[in-house]
Amino acid sequence: MADPCIIALDAMGGDHGPGVVVPAALKYRARNPHVELILVGDEERLGDCLGKASRERLRIRHTTQEVAMDESPSKALRGKKDSSMRVAIDLVQRGEAQACVSAGNTGALMATARFVLKTLPGVDRPAISTTVPALRGHTHMLDLGANVDCTGAHLFQFAVMGSELASVVDGIRSPKVALLNIGQEEIKGNEQVKQAHELLLASSLNYIGYVEGDDIYLGDVDVVVCDGFIGNVALKSSEGVAKFIAQSLRAQFKRTLLSRLAALAAMPVLRRFGRDIDPRRYNGASLLGLRGIVIKSHGGADELAFENAIQIAEKEIRADISRRIGEQVERQLVAEPYKESA
Amino acid sequence: MADPCIIALDAMGGDHGPGVVVPAALKYRARNPHVELILVGDEERLGDCLGKASRERLRIRHTTQEVAMDESPSKALRGKKDSSMRVAIDLVQRGEAQACVSAGNTGALMATARFVLKTLPGVDRPAISTTVPALRGHTHMLDLGANVDCTGAHLFQFAVMGSELASVVDGIRSPKVALLNIGQEEIKGNEQVKQAHELLLASSLNYIGYVEGDDIYLGDVDVVVCDGFIGNVALKSSEGVAKFIAQSLRAQFKRTLLSRLAALAAMPVLRRFGRDIDPRRYNGASLLGLRGIVIKSHGGADELAFENAIQIAEKEIRADISRRIGEQVERQLVAEPYKESA
Repeated sequence: MADPCIIALDAMGGDHGPGVVVPAALKYRARNPHVELILVGDEERLGDCLGKASRERLRIRHTTQEVAMDESPSKALRGKKDSSMRVAIDLVQRGEAQACVSAGNTGALMATARFVLKTLPGVDRPAISTTVPALRGHTHMLDLGANVDCTGAHLFQFAVMGSELASVVDGIRSPKVALLNIGQEEIKGNEQVKQAHELLLASSLNYIGYVEGDDIYLGDVDVVVCDGFIGNVALKSSEGVAKFIAQSLRAQFKRTLLSRLAALAAMPVLRRFGRDIDPRRYNGASLLGLRGIVIKSHGGADELAFENAIQIAEKEIRADISRRIGEQVERQLVAEPYKESA
Repeated sequence: MADPCIIALDAMGGDHGPGVVVPAALKYRARNPHVELILVGDEERLGDCLGKASRERLRIRHTTQEVAMDESPSKALRGKKDSSMRVAIDLVQRGEAQACVSAGNTGALMATARFVLKTLPGVDRPAISTTVPALRGHTHMLDLGANVDCTGAHLFQFAVMGSELASVVDGIRSPKVALLNIGQEEIKGNEQVKQAHELLLASSLNYIGYVEGDDIYLGDVDVVVCDGFIGNVALKSSEGVAKFIAQSLRAQFKRTLLSRLAALAAMPVLRRFGRDIDPRRYNGASLLGLRGIVIKSHGGADELAFENAIQIAEKEIRADISRRIGEQVERQLVAEPYKESA
């Protein structure tokens, strides 16, 4: 706790920019006074959001540019060297912050973080990892959209990083790692998945084999590995079903006078349930495989969701996640180099 | 209605075999006396399940072999020429039945159907299509696991078949067709999806572009097209979330005496809701692109679920789906051959 814990926030990023980042930061700081937060963005706009009273509680690092939510990663990287996103990552690179959080566009964040921080030795591509609620508590899932065409070796690297993340963050000694696959025999899996399967079988990870989509939520598994296209579709489909269920249930409760009364009786339970699976409580995805901690918040995050992303950043700083993953990657991917059969 | 409507049932297939197929068939036949059902399987076992009283209500076609749920498709195809699955498909091929339904293993069913019935001209690979509940009613989704490595041309063929299916079954004049993709700009989509996108833009289908996973349930779309790996993962993940939500909600309602009372009040609404999204009501996937109608039931289907699969078969017979898809495929894929750019 004596170590500094300084987190840079891309205050202009996301759909709501400082309107969400500033109040979230103030609340987080109020509850965690040992954490120092740097608001990176336009000084004047940030000052307006902060108000006089709370100005001394957060540091401001002035920047003149912003990365738009639909801006191309390459354009952001080349043309926006004084953007709030870029400067927040620069602060991590220079050691002035131990992590950064951005709700800005994923492609630009990944490209910029990769360019500025560089990948760990042995890691070809950083991956995006998040936790999803599950019967057993939660499951770590990666990749979620950073990489759409992965080789078996890439999937293996994701597995190594995900395993270490789960181990460090959840304190599990030997997390159960699985590859996401489909169930039919013989038409099972594509070439990349089969290749990763062989690499994992030969590794020292606690590899439990293939799981299917439903196991993400119901299975006895800590880390589920897949390529970014699959991971993104699985996650978005899940969000869709959850929203569909919530809306259908709400409609049912509104149907008749009697069902409205039933809703009244059930409300406390439904509310508590809603809090339990509130997606905002799972906001904050980790960019893994970089020489530094970068957390991606959902673009549409509200204050509660953004606070959660800051909390993940703090957790990863305390767990010294970059160093730990670096060591694990060194052990698994550099010291005993695996042979890529493709 | 004067046309015959004869459906062959693989009575030995699935986790429960005749124990589910026979009672489901009896119930279906009782409600739909104009539909003739042929139970294909071991005469003695089927007779036991039927009992004397109901024996004359269903025809039996005796077979001596069964395809195991974990049997390899190639082994089933080569070694099981008198299996209940094979003979049910043979009946369709010979015109003695207009459709068949099997809860047997998907790989074997697809391989056998493809071998016996052949694909329609212009179709490289049959696809598996199902409907999922959605805010707007339901969405047709394909492929769901038959094809794990698809080219853009394959995806385009799926789109043509799915569009015609939705048009015929739901009576929509020009169904909205979309490609399943991920949201990030620049890292958007893999090569196959981009290629299919170009083919669809140039086609006469009502192509609305890309959708994301959540749009399957929430979006304004009739047909969602993807490769079998993605489709399978999306569907299984969705099932997982739905079960997770159901179990978590149940646990919440059981927590305290007060919440148990609330559950009592809410029960009628929750029950009705449960019926609305009951996955059994969506059981029955169509194997599209074959010269004949083949419906795959979930292996673990119960009576209600299996009846639903029979109903889909009847619906597709009435709609003359094979001929209609054949004509559409002819128009889109054979008469005006599209150029594959890969």
